[in-house]
Amino acid sequence: MSADASKIDPKDFRDIDPGDRLLMGPGPSDVPARVLQAMAAPCIGHLDPYFLETMNETQQLLRHLFQTQNALTIPVSATGSAGMEACFVNLVEPGDEVVVAVNGVFGTRMGDIVNRIGGKLVKVDGEWGRAVDAEAVARTVKGCKPKVVAVVHAETSTGACTPLEDISKIAHEAGALFLVDCVTSLAGIDVPIDRMKIDAAYSGTQKCISCPPGLSPVTFSAAAVKALDQRKHPVVSWYLDFSMIRDYWGNERKYHHTAPVNMIYAIREALRIIAEEGLEARFARHWLNHRALVAGVEAMGLSMLVPEKERLPMLNAIRIPDGVNDLKVRKALLNDFAIEIGGGLGQFAGKVWRVGLMGHSCRRKNVFLFLSALEAVLKAEGLKAKPGAIDAATAVYASA
Amino acid sequence: MSADASKIDPKDFRDIDPGDRLLMGPGPSDVPARVLQAMAAPCIGHLDPYFLETMNETQQLLRHLFQTQNALTIPVSATGSAGMEACFVNLVEPGDEVVVAVNGVFGTRMGDIVNRIGGKLVKVDGEWGRAVDAEAVARTVKGCKPKVVAVVHAETSTGACTPLEDISKIAHEAGALFLVDCVTSLAGIDVPIDRMKIDAAYSGTQKCISCPPGLSPVTFSAAAVKALDQRKHPVVSWYLDFSMIRDYWGNERKYHHTAPVNMIYAIREALRIIAEEGLEARFARHWLNHRALVAGVEAMGLSMLVPEKERLPMLNAIRIPDGVNDLKVRKALLNDFAIEIGGGLGQFAGKVWRVGLMGHSCRRKNVFLFLSALEAVLKAEGLKAKPGAIDAATAVYASA
Repeated sequence: MSADASKIDPKDFRDIDPGDRLLMGPGPSDVPARVLQAMAAPCIGHLDPYFLETMNETQQLLRHLFQTQNALTIPVSATGSAGMEACFVNLVEPGDEVVVAVNGVFGTRMGDIVNRIGGKLVKVDGEWGRAVDAEAVARTVKGCKPKVVAVVHAETSTGACTPLEDISKIAHEAGALFLVDCVTSLAGIDVPIDRMKIDAAYSGTQKCISCPPGLSPVTFSAAAVKALDQRKHPVVSWYLDFSMIRDYWGNERKYHHTAPVNMIYAIREALRIIAEEGLEARFARHWLNHRALVAGVEAMGLSMLVPEKERLPMLNAIRIPDGVNDLKVRKALLNDFAIEIGGGLGQFAGKVWRVGLMGHSCRRKNVFLFLSALEAVLKAEGLKAKPGAIDAATAVYASA
Repeated sequence: MSADASKIDPKDFRDIDPGDRLLMGPGPSDVPARVLQAMAAPCIGHLDPYFLETMNETQQLLRHLFQTQNALTIPVSATGSAGMEACFVNLVEPGDEVVVAVNGVFGTRMGDIVNRIGGKLVKVDGEWGRAVDAEAVARTVKGCKPKVVAVVHAETSTGACTPLEDISKIAHEAGALFLVDCVTSLAGIDVPIDRMKIDAAYSGTQKCISCPPGLSPVTFSAAAVKALDQRKHPVVSWYLDFSMIRDYWGNERKYHHTAPVNMIYAIREALRIIAEEGLEARFARHWLNHRALVAGVEAMGLSMLVPEKERLPMLNAIRIPDGVNDLKVRKALLNDFAIEIGGGLGQFAGKVWRVGLMGHSCRRKNVFLFLSALEAVLKAEGLKAKPGAIDAATAVYASA
């Protein structure tokens, strides 16, 4: 950079050309060409009749994906973390008790947000890499009067899946709202909002929806909307205040902020692809490719972080074998094979790789490429993996 | 919608096809094909080396546009209103006095945000459709101890432009930070952050930058960063907390939230186009087309809302002649000519049209098309506009 940071030569900036990465990390996942093309349609006004109709369709498609009748089902105009913030700022008022189960980075983040907005945080400390223990939640809920009980369905930091049914019952028996982070689970495994009596849920576009990052699908039940209506204090965030935003997404069409028009085109197309595939088929695809990946990884002699019954299919945390250099392996996969995988977070930094099988990235050919590339890279690093990874994966597909 | 809102038939959802609107409203503006193409490049990881370099380049290009050396110069991962919220939540703590000049919708919104986050709002009430009176700001600042003095440079709701130099001096003499909304002005008229000693500024992508909505460029001076460092309370918004976000955009590259990758591609390309044109040429283009538009409008016998010396070039508020139906005219422009213009907001609803000449939309051919279409539509509405609009506009271009 020159001494004057504001002086530039435009010729120093080349055409964008990110190459052809295969995204098998914790997100974003690969985006189908149809979604990129839809996103590149001409931008139009955020109150244009065509765009208002596009918003309606996007809401219908989101309700299908969330398996909900909830009227307030919208994509928040920012990434998944803003969806988390939106759920808490709209439902929690200063002094409200909030039970948050923490078994990874994203539960920790929930607690951080509750503290910032003046909620009274009551944590359930869970083990990282394991599902949240419903009985521990039950004990904690008995000791307080929570307005909200919050849990991360799919901990992206570890690959652990927490069953929702029991915790939903515990929350409702305590008269609390049940809030769920389904950033990584939605569109990859079953997230039946109405059947599970989830009152508030948020997700991200860049995981199993396979749309670029930039929006956060959120849905609120009638009980959550009632809590919003009965607030005593204004929502601390103007940008995320659903009491106004619902009048833009609802029939009033009242201007709040300018919607991210082309991102809405993109998620609509991604949701359309999901509807065409069908939810059941999509979930089955995620489980099948996951089983093949695990079979291959274990055949190689590597082991998974999360116990079998608590694993997510779309986020696979593999223990890094002793003596293997985390960064060197990931760099080799990126530079020699154009495959992105993720490293560990928090207490698992340097201890695990996080391999995503999300949405469009979740395909047999990618499982095969990853297994064969990892085998070669580990060999170059001096680790002689056991043979048979591809055979093991093939056997899974054959038996499906 | 069927009785079960979550049941849909994917065949009911067609390919996205918004048509070829000409965007001459208050934003979004027309997006150049190069920007749409860049946005449709393959999505890659938000920590991918190529993307990190793309982030660096985007910051360099933003510093050029803001005419600043400020290290903390980034696109916030949400639309312009989130940039407004980001500036206030990072700089204002509970109990801090904040002087906000209000001469339209967006000054009003600033005040709303200050109240929500516990700041002590001290309003300078200005006239809608006029520039803010610097002397009124001076009087108000003398009566309190403000931490921040905030003003909207370009009131998108009225088209009034407030000069910044005097208010900047008033703010600094009072020991306050100077905060400026340049959502609509940036990239259309001169917004020299360092020369005007602006401590915090935010903008939007969908006005004169001519990128789809979805990001909010923000810049913080060293003094603003110092205020952030010396905070006694955590920033109430986790998503907008610059004390963490700067570690992702800075050399640490510490993960905060997933950046909206493809939107970053888009703004980088839009900023590259701006750098290629050059700031001076771009500002001159906005002024020239504005003068031609006004000449044509006035030749028709219509009048502008804002006095000549206080007008913005990129947002032209035209008084609706008596007896003319606002909605019918706007619908005819949209349906018969595919031209979007904006209606009035707040006290000017039904009283003015807001005609944008922003970024890529700000071209001679669009001025001609708008003038001739408006003349025809008004005639169909029974208003016989005076002849000579095109001649008047032509004369402006000829004398340039």
